[in-house]
Amino acid sequence: MSGKNRLIYLPLGGAGEIGMNTYVYGYGPEDQERLIVVDLGVTFPDMSSTPGVDLIMPDMKWLEQRLDRIEAIFITHAHEDHIGALGHLWPKLKKKVYARKFTATIGRLKLEEYGLPNDVITTVGARPEVVEAGPFKVQFLPISHSIPECSMLIIDTPAGRVVHSGDFKLDATPVVGEGFDEAAMRAVAAEAPVKALMCDSTNVFSTHAGRSESTLKDPIAELIKNAKGMVVATTFASNVARLQTLAEAARAADRSVCLLGRAMKRMVTASEQSGVLKNFPRTVSPEEALDIPRGNLMLIVTGSQGERRAASAQLSRGKYLGHEMKEGDLFLFSSKTIPGNEREVLRIYNAFSEMGVDVQDDANGLYHVSGHANRPDLETVHNILKPAILIPMHGEHRHLREHAKIAAAKGIATEIVTNGMMIDITGNTPEVAEYIETGRTYLDGSVLIGAMDGVVRDRIRMALGGHALVTIILDEADEALGDPWVETMGLPEIGKHGKPLAEAIEAELGAFIAKAGARILRDDDKLDEAIRRVTRQVAMEEVGKKPEVTIVVSRLTDS
Amino acid sequence: MSGKNRLIYLPLGGAGEIGMNTYVYGYGPEDQERLIVVDLGVTFPDMSSTPGVDLIMPDMKWLEQRLDRIEAIFITHAHEDHIGALGHLWPKLKKKVYARKFTATIGRLKLEEYGLPNDVITTVGARPEVVEAGPFKVQFLPISHSIPECSMLIIDTPAGRVVHSGDFKLDATPVVGEGFDEAAMRAVAAEAPVKALMCDSTNVFSTHAGRSESTLKDPIAELIKNAKGMVVATTFASNVARLQTLAEAARAADRSVCLLGRAMKRMVTASEQSGVLKNFPRTVSPEEALDIPRGNLMLIVTGSQGERRAASAQLSRGKYLGHEMKEGDLFLFSSKTIPGNEREVLRIYNAFSEMGVDVQDDANGLYHVSGHANRPDLETVHNILKPAILIPMHGEHRHLREHAKIAAAKGIATEIVTNGMMIDITGNTPEVAEYIETGRTYLDGSVLIGAMDGVVRDRIRMALGGHALVTIILDEADEALGDPWVETMGLPEIGKHGKPLAEAIEAELGAFIAKAGARILRDDDKLDEAIRRVTRQVAMEEVGKKPEVTIVVSRLTDS
Repeated sequence: MSGKNRLIYLPLGGAGEIGMNTYVYGYGPEDQERLIVVDLGVTFPDMSSTPGVDLIMPDMKWLEQRLDRIEAIFITHAHEDHIGALGHLWPKLKKKVYARKFTATIGRLKLEEYGLPNDVITTVGARPEVVEAGPFKVQFLPISHSIPECSMLIIDTPAGRVVHSGDFKLDATPVVGEGFDEAAMRAVAAEAPVKALMCDSTNVFSTHAGRSESTLKDPIAELIKNAKGMVVATTFASNVARLQTLAEAARAADRSVCLLGRAMKRMVTASEQSGVLKNFPRTVSPEEALDIPRGNLMLIVTGSQGERRAASAQLSRGKYLGHEMKEGDLFLFSSKTIPGNEREVLRIYNAFSEMGVDVQDDANGLYHVSGHANRPDLETVHNILKPAILIPMHGEHRHLREHAKIAAAKGIATEIVTNGMMIDITGNTPEVAEYIETGRTYLDGSVLIGAMDGVVRDRIRMALGGHALVTIILDEADEALGDPWVETMGLPEIGKHGKPLAEAIEAELGAFIAKAGARILRDDDKLDEAIRRVTRQVAMEEVGKKPEVTIVVSRLTDS
Repeated sequence: MSGKNRLIYLPLGGAGEIGMNTYVYGYGPEDQERLIVVDLGVTFPDMSSTPGVDLIMPDMKWLEQRLDRIEAIFITHAHEDHIGALGHLWPKLKKKVYARKFTATIGRLKLEEYGLPNDVITTVGARPEVVEAGPFKVQFLPISHSIPECSMLIIDTPAGRVVHSGDFKLDATPVVGEGFDEAAMRAVAAEAPVKALMCDSTNVFSTHAGRSESTLKDPIAELIKNAKGMVVATTFASNVARLQTLAEAARAADRSVCLLGRAMKRMVTASEQSGVLKNFPRTVSPEEALDIPRGNLMLIVTGSQGERRAASAQLSRGKYLGHEMKEGDLFLFSSKTIPGNEREVLRIYNAFSEMGVDVQDDANGLYHVSGHANRPDLETVHNILKPAILIPMHGEHRHLREHAKIAAAKGIATEIVTNGMMIDITGNTPEVAEYIETGRTYLDGSVLIGAMDGVVRDRIRMALGGHALVTIILDEADEALGDPWVETMGLPEIGKHGKPLAEAIEAELGAFIAKAGARILRDDDKLDEAIRRVTRQVAMEEVGKKPEVTIVVSRLTDS
């Protein structure tokens, strides 16, 4: 093992996907690098690929095998795709966590929820405060995003300065929290040359400059001023600036503000406690709100992505905490639908339409702005920081590739680095060091399972092909006691020939067993295989489906 | 029963959804109206609400109970959401079908596919040709859309003239087929006042005037001229005009054209046979194409919506018919993603990105235009036809509502009519006559099942909660023979307490049965209920999930 030190970068999540951000940096001799982890995020399941799953997070195997080398965990901001796995994965790592005040507040709530010690999170001030973690010196540089106190990490190593962008946009007037401070960013590069910039790529395909959160103020105020009935608005609970804009517009229109949905309250409380939110209008409780005339009320609710259990979806199905939408009310999506959530969001939209509610979507940006830097803003950051190396992160492969093209066109050394690619950035060009086996861990009900365990695969197969159960009882002489018994679930009951499917399978199995010799009947594996084959053949013939089959052969013994 | 004649309209599909268009018109004394059916469409399943389903179509029950009253079926155009159910539902109705030549060609192919007589479709010429069907006189008015020979139906009845818009846009230069002919449309209203317009609502939220198919010619030609490697373009196979534009751009760039995907060839052949497509560039077969240098080849492929088995998805997974995408190739989505298909389309996009392929999406309309009329064009049609009544159709509830608002603002009598609402339009305002029980029929594998049969509900439950199977053998004295046997599928194997889940359930069930008295053990229903309860409790406790449970109690008898 060479004693030469190297600086490595390894994404375990977030590179080649939007979500589940988890990045590792290391410095030291090969395979003895001291490590820091940046963010522990989740991503969300969907019915097509992960039915029944509650949360998706990165597999920690690689880190668990190197526990003694991990110095610390840093969290850039409190979005679920950056901090959401803390409560689930921290017990596997048990390392000190560093975050700024608001993020730490949210992080502690997550740890408490799972009965974990919340004092493992250390609150850190903004740059120039420095956290030393082994060979790393880390500073939090405030940057605007769509949640308070988001930070870029300035990571100084013996091999040079690395900037980990976190999520960001360049917004000088973000309504709540710190605006983009160009001088502060210039100082980062002036102080020490930036060896590598790991950079958010989410909006690389948006070619216009990003707009400030504050541009929403007038359109939203105008919309709410003109509304007649009750107004209900939804946005991400963590977008505290948006909550502020919405609440101020409500107050200006003589409307009391009521927050609906657990996450809404938690975010506002955490923001107030950590000092990032001052002057948030007084809110009324859902009960108090029931006594307020509809024309003097605005609800700000969770569920902008159509989540089934959130307040928006609940209201679209009827009463929620006593509140109900009516003809002439206004529902505002102050949000953009994340690709993949369209069906759920439109279901809510149409349900409100059936109630006679006027639904207003983001109107191509009039009532929503993104929290991520568009292409021109990304280029501004490239130009300010002048990194020797630019590694796109926080994006699907198409985003990373586009971002790498931009870097290459400017002559910046770059590489498309996806989850599991360990990159050596000791020199002035990135070199692929190793491919790590990475994966996903699912929170499934109350337990963690591996994505490759086959559990979810079986559920998908049952969802597509249904399930058939076959029971057979064999006596002491390996002869069938009675007929095979078949029950199906999720399969058409009546087959093509007008006969119940289960009976058709039973008849065919009965005939098969009558003919089968002792060689098959005595051999569990052979018998299973044959029964499965016959069952699927009959189902295919009768209803055109190949179900999953569970077979129970009960063998009676003399005992 | 009153002898007074009335004119009714009843959507069975397509009103309150985009897809599955099936509309009924009736004229005659109440409950004795003579009926015509307009379109027999399908809609497509999705994994969240209809896993494993192959196609969704309207329930024919209401029509089946009135077979003697149905005069004929009219098909406006050959899109799947208007003609796709013909092969499945025609056998339930067995009535004469009328369509124009291209549509009839596609319709016959569908009937042949299911071994049905293809001579039930009668080819009809455009207006002024008239089909008499009982009290109805129907003419096909050519109108531009995104498939050849789309038609509005001019339906004359003793109660007045009805215009059923079908799907349409106002495109004077549609590249293939008949352009929008304003004079012809004006003549419809001049000839006889339009009592009611049933009108496409798909693009009612698009506030700019629609663009012509021909505007794509230059941008597409430019894009392909500048491409270096192989070019692959996808669009709906039925958009024959687009195929023509793509193929011409290829020829202009010295590229041979190869059509990949069954639907592509079928559409081009049907278009050529029915005479709507002339001058389509000569194509090469997939085999011939293998010998052509990549820089001289363009593939036009199926799968613009990310369909798993279509050519686009196949190419994104590797070789398809010997063809393979490579670094430097161009893939063009000359299409828009239908809401709900984003995940599948982006999966393909990212897979190509990983191969180093440059992917071009529709670039906000540069490489794709919609086939539906935008709001200003809808208003143009309202103004030309001047209907007394406007009933929005072909839209989700939000589209219908918005369209009705436009009508109301103009003083046109209107009503939001959704599937199953029978409307009396004999007078000059629409009156709700009756609410019909409507539903959906699924093609599930090879059989038709009802949406409410519970089959798909069970599949969804298994997908979310997994499945547990319990078998118990009771002897002649109702005593357990051996222990209960549990097998799970789609559930985590190991529970919270580190023990296999199946064993934990078996243990609890064993204890329960040992304690259960004869009163429970002898009663199949009570025993089932108790076993199900215990099984779900243990699963909830151990892994946080409530599975579907199948229980088999085998009772040995003395026989």
